[in-house]
Amino acid sequence: MKSALYLYNTISRKKELFEPVSPPFAGMYVCGPTVYSDTHLGHARPAITFDILYRYLMHLGYKVRYVRNITDVGHLENETDDTGEDRIERKARQLNLEPMEVVQKYMNSFHRAMGRLNTLEPSIEPRATGHIIEQQNMIDALLRKGYAYESNGSVYFDVEKYNKAYPYGILSGRVLEEMQASSRLLEGQDEKRGRFDFALWKKASPAHIMRWSSPWSEGFPGWHLECSVMSTKYLGEVFDIHGGGMDLIFPHHECEMAQSTAIQGHSPVRYWVHNNMITINGQKMARSLGNFITLDELFTGSHKMLLQAYSPMTIRFFILQAQYRSTLDFSNEALLAASLGLQKLMVAKKTLEGLKPSGSSTIDISDIGKRCYEAISDDLNTPVAIAHIFDAVRIINLVNDGKEKLSADDIKALQLLFKTFVYDILGLMEEEGAGSGKLSGVLTILLELRQEAKARKEWAVSDRIRDRLAVLGITVKDRKDGYDWEISS
Amino acid sequence: MKSALYLYNTISRKKELFEPVSPPFAGMYVCGPTVYSDTHLGHARPAITFDILYRYLMHLGYKVRYVRNITDVGHLENETDDTGEDRIERKARQLNLEPMEVVQKYMNSFHRAMGRLNTLEPSIEPRATGHIIEQQNMIDALLRKGYAYESNGSVYFDVEKYNKAYPYGILSGRVLEEMQASSRLLEGQDEKRGRFDFALWKKASPAHIMRWSSPWSEGFPGWHLECSVMSTKYLGEVFDIHGGGMDLIFPHHECEMAQSTAIQGHSPVRYWVHNNMITINGQKMARSLGNFITLDELFTGSHKMLLQAYSPMTIRFFILQAQYRSTLDFSNEALLAASLGLQKLMVAKKTLEGLKPSGSSTIDISDIGKRCYEAISDDLNTPVAIAHIFDAVRIINLVNDGKEKLSADDIKALQLLFKTFVYDILGLMEEEGAGSGKLSGVLTILLELRQEAKARKEWAVSDRIRDRLAVLGITVKDRKDGYDWEISS
Repeated sequence: MKSALYLYNTISRKKELFEPVSPPFAGMYVCGPTVYSDTHLGHARPAITFDILYRYLMHLGYKVRYVRNITDVGHLENETDDTGEDRIERKARQLNLEPMEVVQKYMNSFHRAMGRLNTLEPSIEPRATGHIIEQQNMIDALLRKGYAYESNGSVYFDVEKYNKAYPYGILSGRVLEEMQASSRLLEGQDEKRGRFDFALWKKASPAHIMRWSSPWSEGFPGWHLECSVMSTKYLGEVFDIHGGGMDLIFPHHECEMAQSTAIQGHSPVRYWVHNNMITINGQKMARSLGNFITLDELFTGSHKMLLQAYSPMTIRFFILQAQYRSTLDFSNEALLAASLGLQKLMVAKKTLEGLKPSGSSTIDISDIGKRCYEAISDDLNTPVAIAHIFDAVRIINLVNDGKEKLSADDIKALQLLFKTFVYDILGLMEEEGAGSGKLSGVLTILLELRQEAKARKEWAVSDRIRDRLAVLGITVKDRKDGYDWEISS
Repeated sequence: MKSALYLYNTISRKKELFEPVSPPFAGMYVCGPTVYSDTHLGHARPAITFDILYRYLMHLGYKVRYVRNITDVGHLENETDDTGEDRIERKARQLNLEPMEVVQKYMNSFHRAMGRLNTLEPSIEPRATGHIIEQQNMIDALLRKGYAYESNGSVYFDVEKYNKAYPYGILSGRVLEEMQASSRLLEGQDEKRGRFDFALWKKASPAHIMRWSSPWSEGFPGWHLECSVMSTKYLGEVFDIHGGGMDLIFPHHECEMAQSTAIQGHSPVRYWVHNNMITINGQKMARSLGNFITLDELFTGSHKMLLQAYSPMTIRFFILQAQYRSTLDFSNEALLAASLGLQKLMVAKKTLEGLKPSGSSTIDISDIGKRCYEAISDDLNTPVAIAHIFDAVRIINLVNDGKEKLSADDIKALQLLFKTFVYDILGLMEEEGAGSGKLSGVLTILLELRQEAKARKEWAVSDRIRDRLAVLGITVKDRKDGYDWEISS
């Protein structure tokens, strides 16, 4: 029933069959956050995308080592020009904190948000500051190979030299000569030989706090270097998957590939996988546009653009409703629709648990699981898989309404489908203790009393219970043979 | 009302008034776990002890920087002789994992357990592997000062040389000459000049995975070095409080103090604070004795010595029932007693919320808060503070039973007392959603219906509700003027 996984490879621009270097092992490196601000909607998409890939690879039987880094030094304000202040140090000055306090604060908040989104913890979460010596060793190797040069205590990667041996720009579809022709001159870069050279080591100014001794100067490593170092340290010279957001393809991943290729003579990565971005009502998310929404604001509904709070599972379900390479537009309407869809799914799951089997089925469910596997295996097409799962939801409701019948075996098959896809692979879960023992236990007693009141035609009592529960966000729906209840998130 | 804080200083052997170097700032460094095994009862005590100190310092108005390290390299099997295999690397080989996977796994599990125990996150959680260069710089400084020597690619601290300039053993109450006289000779230490010299840098054997380049060899740092480096990096040359378990006084803290003193010429720490150990039925906790209980086992009741599961707040309350410098003996009886005590406290808190004020009070509560402050200020005497809080509990119950009266102001004062001491300082909280909206909301509706059934003398209904709730672990107690309920953990 399981089908072969195809992944769209950014570098080849086509879907390719996934074949790891050393099965049953699979190695995946994903670019994690620079921990200098609150975790926002933009962090949620790669985290969930690669969580699905991690879960699915494990489900297919691979032993996966999933490495996701924490950038805690070296990410400058202006990524493309590789200039400006270190983002963490700037924030530290603003908050009057030690840079490592900033790192700790936002790393903790990232981990909390990731936990609430039910993403699995990576096998290793290496930090850039935890690998300074390894970065210095790689700089040393690049200097010795002639692909880097020292200038005034800093060390830069020589893109022009590299481009003579290897095609710089191959990942992002850029050509160095064209970039050079179309670029305007910038001032203050006289340390560099070429406009597109990037820093491997930056000499620290006297006021700079985050600094380490090195053969070249007291300074700090360049942003792109950490990923070259940490991916190959933990996954080997050639590893299976490198993931991240599309915005990282250039310059970050292009430079990362150049660094590793210059050392090794070949690319370190077999499958480059990039998720698309989230837009807000069609616009790019940016602090300057006032549409920058943190995950905590989403979970609590405290941003002015939000009509209500959206639960972590609603956010997760919303993100899964688009294939990861499509754009995904955030709006209150889309989130509300996701919330209702998720509720429908979870109610169906509860209904399924109590479904009464018939001798034989009047409806064919045999293909649903196969189609779900095909969808996920087709470059993680989660929206198609979800559509198939909703075919199952429709069937469950028809059976519950007595309009169709399912055999005990088919009911079991649907339960397995829910467990496998909804829980294990898509990573959705019940929220707010709806399924937890005490709340559902107490609710069951109360609703039994309500049924008895109804049987005695004590409508005032039964209505009062229904209305009081509604205030608590618990909806009771009367059915001809009993009742259903839903707990809002 | 707030009183000056006295802390027992291990090095002076007496309680001293706490006066930070640079008020209103206070710096605290606490030795965190070596992340190579599951978080156990022994980790809970220092974590909770220094959490109370952190909370109380903040409550007193200090701006606290709380640094707690993660040891992810260099902690060898045999601490006293500084020999044996790296604990993390040994575990990695056993589990067939990369050492950093072991680190990630147990660091995550430690953080989860700390969260459940409601300990606040430290301001910075530095890792030894994140400070290799800084450690190498300190080794270099010690070599230059003549307090260290290189031997076969490793570097050792010269204890005898240090002891000529500064009193080695001053923290733990040891005298080097006596130690030397009473020690047996050990083999395989010929790299060292002196029996009590300890490693600053260890040359890695060919099979050793965790290794970094250095001027002396590819190797790894000694265990004691990380704390000297990370405490002074983040808290300065002289900082206020250094905490940890009593088992760390020797050799770890003694060696740490020697390293920093050798560089600086003076001790880095003003107040050395050490918590005592937890014993199990009077015995030391040890894997070999089969009485090694992890926190997950406690929370789930899955260890053979446990009669039941104990909730995180029960563990916390149990630990707070002893002053941190006393031994604390774990037993099922003690844990059950803690669980009942905590329940009593939480029920009283709920009762307090609904207490009806009288025109004037018939009982004097004015001293309770003052006595609580005095107790915590007296070297964090939490059991005495808890005893005073239970005076308040007794009063609350008397008032609730109509035997005493309290004015509105006094009720408010008691509410503030609970907020300040029970929640903010002792860090206790309600568990299992007892206070959370939906469960208590549904329960309230159900218990109202039960009251109505009782009013109609429908005893069968009211008994059924009580019995069904009991099955769910919810106890309903009838009172003459209504009812009380308790949710078991």
